[in-house]
Amino acid sequence: MSVQGVGDPVDRSRTVREVGERRLIGELTRAAAGAGTSDGGSAPDIVIGSGDDAAVIDTAGPTVISTDTAVQGRHFRFDWSDARTVGARAVIQASADIAAMGARTTGIVVSIACPSSTTVGTVLELNAGIVEATHGIGARVLGGDLVAADQVVLGVTAVGALDGGDPIVVGGARPGDVLAVTGHALGSSAAGLALLIDAQARGTDDLLRAHPGPLAAYRLPAPDLGQGPIAARAGAHAMTDISDGLVEELITMATASGVRLEVRADHVPAGPGVAAAAAALGVDPRSWVLAGGEDHELLAAFPAGAVPAEWTAIGHVAAGSGVWIDGHPIGELHGWGSFDS
Amino acid sequence: MSVQGVGDPVDRSRTVREVGERRLIGELTRAAAGAGTSDGGSAPDIVIGSGDDAAVIDTAGPTVISTDTAVQGRHFRFDWSDARTVGARAVIQASADIAAMGARTTGIVVSIACPSSTTVGTVLELNAGIVEATHGIGARVLGGDLVAADQVVLGVTAVGALDGGDPIVVGGARPGDVLAVTGHALGSSAAGLALLIDAQARGTDDLLRAHPGPLAAYRLPAPDLGQGPIAARAGAHAMTDISDGLVEELITMATASGVRLEVRADHVPAGPGVAAAAAALGVDPRSWVLAGGEDHELLAAFPAGAVPAEWTAIGHVAAGSGVWIDGHPIGELHGWGSFDS
Repeated sequence: MSVQGVGDPVDRSRTVREVGERRLIGELTRAAAGAGTSDGGSAPDIVIGSGDDAAVIDTAGPTVISTDTAVQGRHFRFDWSDARTVGARAVIQASADIAAMGARTTGIVVSIACPSSTTVGTVLELNAGIVEATHGIGARVLGGDLVAADQVVLGVTAVGALDGGDPIVVGGARPGDVLAVTGHALGSSAAGLALLIDAQARGTDDLLRAHPGPLAAYRLPAPDLGQGPIAARAGAHAMTDISDGLVEELITMATASGVRLEVRADHVPAGPGVAAAAAALGVDPRSWVLAGGEDHELLAAFPAGAVPAEWTAIGHVAAGSGVWIDGHPIGELHGWGSFDS
Repeated sequence: MSVQGVGDPVDRSRTVREVGERRLIGELTRAAAGAGTSDGGSAPDIVIGSGDDAAVIDTAGPTVISTDTAVQGRHFRFDWSDARTVGARAVIQASADIAAMGARTTGIVVSIACPSSTTVGTVLELNAGIVEATHGIGARVLGGDLVAADQVVLGVTAVGALDGGDPIVVGGARPGDVLAVTGHALGSSAAGLALLIDAQARGTDDLLRAHPGPLAAYRLPAPDLGQGPIAARAGAHAMTDISDGLVEELITMATASGVRLEVRADHVPAGPGVAAAAAALGVDPRSWVLAGGEDHELLAAFPAGAVPAEWTAIGHVAAGSGVWIDGHPIGELHGWGSFDS
């Protein structure tokens, strides 16, 4: 990381090449340190924030860490999402992995690679989204890096604290456990993406405008990541976030735990507007709800009777292996497991 | 981060697209967890290693964190360095920031973005370099991400422990302190880069073959990062790593500390072969030694009498402001400050 003082505000219409990476890093550091927080960006567990060689954060107990990378053209498009939302989404994705361990995200470091022809405004908006989302989950931006590249590549590494709890692995599900998920959002991101693809193919955004809920969920999922620590305190045996679709995560949990997972499809809480969007596009909504990725809600296995109030039970854990939905092993189902979000 | 089992070894000549990102992540996770370490990759302070949603590392006291990004074509070229060396270099760069705080790197997480046409062999070599360098400094690979992009973008986030010491900021230099640097390497990386550029321009590698030292240093700097904690225990008042060239780091330290830094150019320990390479190319070696970047040696300000044995004194700290070299403020020097590594 670099250290740089700042001078006058930067003209947002100029490019990264014109302004220089070092000066812009100074702007980003200033934004990370203070903007948008009621306490000026200070927090009792940050010893040294962004601006030195490295940051120092002091939370008692083990550190949980995960990294996520979002690539322009593959994970996001600036004609489908604005820069601020792209930045915020990257934070939510990395922090969902922290929540899935039962931890609270305390800080993030960010790497922004972008063409030197990118406007300063775009970089500042990306950063503003990163800072807003980070502050929104009670964490702080600890530092970052800005480099030139052929396309925008956004890397977010999140660190978190367990606050005395044990980390919840994906492989701890036990027969007799209840399977449950957070939120009422599954399938939303996949539905929003399908609406965007449909609008592009047909050259009209009529369905997009008619179904704003899934579109907003695609642009910025809003899982309640505080449910990760709540699940840990409730005694969850296994947990993961639903980034690759519910079925994929169930397969991972079943394999890692050495158990069979049985789910009732009609118990899975679909996102608002998913059924209507599916009807409009003439597709089976279950392909989104069961196999659509990027919603970042949490999936956990709880001892019977221990499911927290905010979670929805969707099935249970049995002896054996594999994933069964509505009484059928998923190998007999077609299409859901191969949905590519 | 993803979780994936592994099956048969992957054909290294196949591409990432052919093998699939998820399968390759499984291979990378396996390599990170075990290969190349005498203890099978286990370490007492790693609670959960790579393979779950996030890793958990337990070191007493505050966590130091920094991130660095290396972009193909800008920070490295595969015709100038092999993939293994590119991976190792990214780890050294991120870990040098941790050392510059007086900390010991305990773990890294890595993000590999690459074209889907990249061979599996290249990705595995990148990863092998990352794992080797990480183990070489006594740390562990905690996890990572693999995504498709138009060019290779390598992101390394390093975390470290202070082991009871205070973090050493860049802005703590005090009048009367002695300025010192680690190693005998300054200018080496810049000299190696200049030799590569010369060889490309002239279409012959005669000088490259005659000056292997700088070339090796460009490909993989080898700072003794253990000197960071040694400096902290010796009572260093300020420290940073020399990533942007000595003069730039001196300016940063002088500005952040509110002091004047005075350096004797002939006291600065140049890398072996730097003078000879400069003579061969007909340039002033001081442009590399004073302004060349990417050597990642450490610069620190110590109380008089407290400079550790392995460090070389290059000057002292005085009241005032700015950076003076051989009795002249650097504003009067030409060329050194604008060297672009």
